[in-house]
Amino acid sequence: MTYAIPALDERARSEAQERLDGLVKPLGALGRLEELAAWLCAAHGTVPPRPLDDVRVVVFAGDHGVSASGAVSAYPRELTASMVRVFLAGTSGVNVLARQVGARVRVLDVAVDADLDDVPEEVRAAKIRRGSGSIDVTDALEPGEAARAFAAGRRVADDEIGSGADLLIPGDMGIGNTTVASALVAAVLGLPADDVVGTGTGIDQAGRARKVAVIERARARAGERVSDPFELVTALGSACTAATAGFLVQAAVRGVPVVLDGVFPCAAALVAREIAPEAARWWLAGHRSTEPAQAFALKALGLDPILDLGLRLGEGSGAVQAVPVLRNARAVLTEMGRLADLA
Amino acid sequence: MTYAIPALDERARSEAQERLDGLVKPLGALGRLEELAAWLCAAHGTVPPRPLDDVRVVVFAGDHGVSASGAVSAYPRELTASMVRVFLAGTSGVNVLARQVGARVRVLDVAVDADLDDVPEEVRAAKIRRGSGSIDVTDALEPGEAARAFAAGRRVADDEIGSGADLLIPGDMGIGNTTVASALVAAVLGLPADDVVGTGTGIDQAGRARKVAVIERARARAGERVSDPFELVTALGSACTAATAGFLVQAAVRGVPVVLDGVFPCAAALVAREIAPEAARWWLAGHRSTEPAQAFALKALGLDPILDLGLRLGEGSGAVQAVPVLRNARAVLTEMGRLADLA
Repeated sequence: MTYAIPALDERARSEAQERLDGLVKPLGALGRLEELAAWLCAAHGTVPPRPLDDVRVVVFAGDHGVSASGAVSAYPRELTASMVRVFLAGTSGVNVLARQVGARVRVLDVAVDADLDDVPEEVRAAKIRRGSGSIDVTDALEPGEAARAFAAGRRVADDEIGSGADLLIPGDMGIGNTTVASALVAAVLGLPADDVVGTGTGIDQAGRARKVAVIERARARAGERVSDPFELVTALGSACTAATAGFLVQAAVRGVPVVLDGVFPCAAALVAREIAPEAARWWLAGHRSTEPAQAFALKALGLDPILDLGLRLGEGSGAVQAVPVLRNARAVLTEMGRLADLA
Repeated sequence: MTYAIPALDERARSEAQERLDGLVKPLGALGRLEELAAWLCAAHGTVPPRPLDDVRVVVFAGDHGVSASGAVSAYPRELTASMVRVFLAGTSGVNVLARQVGARVRVLDVAVDADLDDVPEEVRAAKIRRGSGSIDVTDALEPGEAARAFAAGRRVADDEIGSGADLLIPGDMGIGNTTVASALVAAVLGLPADDVVGTGTGIDQAGRARKVAVIERARARAGERVSDPFELVTALGSACTAATAGFLVQAAVRGVPVVLDGVFPCAAALVAREIAPEAARWWLAGHRSTEPAQAFALKALGLDPILDLGLRLGEGSGAVQAVPVLRNARAVLTEMGRLADLA
């Protein structure tokens, strides 16, 4: 299947840069704000760009078989289900940070290893399965589940955009997420696990060594299947990876900008780009994670994060903090005076 | 003269870190937000810290003799006076960015090389002189002017704090500012001019070489006088440097946090620390400038900038964009759920 991804409007980008050059400041003195202002103009096809008033964070929650043994994470798998309730209560990190910029947070139980019968139906609308296979010994997903999760992610993007979103931020929650994300980045980019694995939520060097070993075993098991993105996700990924990839591709199809967060959404972005190479033009990087795999993914995507605040929380918590910078970029273009009008 | 600088409250800082450790997140996962939240608690002596609702940017505007020849800047000196009017019209870069965070901007004509008779009296309340001497051939200031400017800067901080400011950001405007700031940083830290000089508002390599030469001549002329901070400012600085230093010291005396911006306020901070070493504990760095002198100054001050957006505008435009991060730091401490309350 191919996807019709709109191009960015290069005429609007040039027009924006001309306008920036005429503002009351030295040429280029607003640094990244200028680049982002011009990018937003190119994305919206207008100078100035539209306001970014309706920002949505969608947190994809799921568990992983690899976390069952406690070998790869500092936290027990049961935490994922508990955190879904925290998101619903509005007291997670990303809930708090999203409120600071007026963004909404939606959490989706895509593959939490629990039956969350008491949560609202809309939270479970994209549920694919409970947990995933432990990638070192078996496939993460059953045949067909990756495609179903991808389609579910596309529908979520359509829902959000249909109800008015003008900026999307995919978040992630799941004990074991950095292991799966690292496996995907290593597989897509052909890197040794030891290069991409970090310390996740806070494991020690022995924990890190186990994580590297898990990923190497998983890749050996997956073999050549990793060259097909859906097979890759089936073998080494998770339902959340596929759903996030679908979300990213559909945002691009609809021409809505996305701000990527940490290592998990960036790994999903690498997968999404394998599925729809032109989708990447609609994505920005919000925040540099402390995970090496994210740095490799961003380099491959040609993206430079807006912020580097040392967060390693996931949830979309880094990316949502980049929203004020994007709004600043629009504001300077819109509100600053012009050199030509100087007394 | 010595200054009574309050200590930060280390008990509040520890209490804040304990509270952070109990939030629904991995230990340390909020990175810089945790460090800043704990710092704000230490500054305010309370957990959580008070809101940062009343943020003030004070732009110190002045001219320099070294800019007269056109040798060190890409822009003519007359621009400084024009920019004072732009600040008053609310259309400068920092005006726009300050509005985004609800901060107020006050511009002060400390040493603009013009008689700005038509601007409000409060803008001229701290005027010391028109321009300054060209530091490569003569002192920047007459005897006594550095002390007068320093006292004026202290009064400005008192005014702002007295009327409710809970966060101060010193901004700068002045053609030739990066030359003077670089000279001060080189002199205080004992570095060759060639190490600290950058490209300012956009000069070429020949312009940069002239700037290095100007600074080396100035330092040779000043000799050993640079070991006294007021003599240093008299010989190599400017009225704005002294005023900004006074502003920084008085904020610390009053126990009000300051966010430093680019190379000029950071050079003034180095001078201020020579005058009142303990004042530095009240300062944060908001934004990394593209000027090497700022990097040296920050390293000497032990400060790591919150943002790195590639701006080289001055005015406080980088630092004011760090305000949302400080507010985020307070918000997570205040609003996030606790691990102990998880189902």
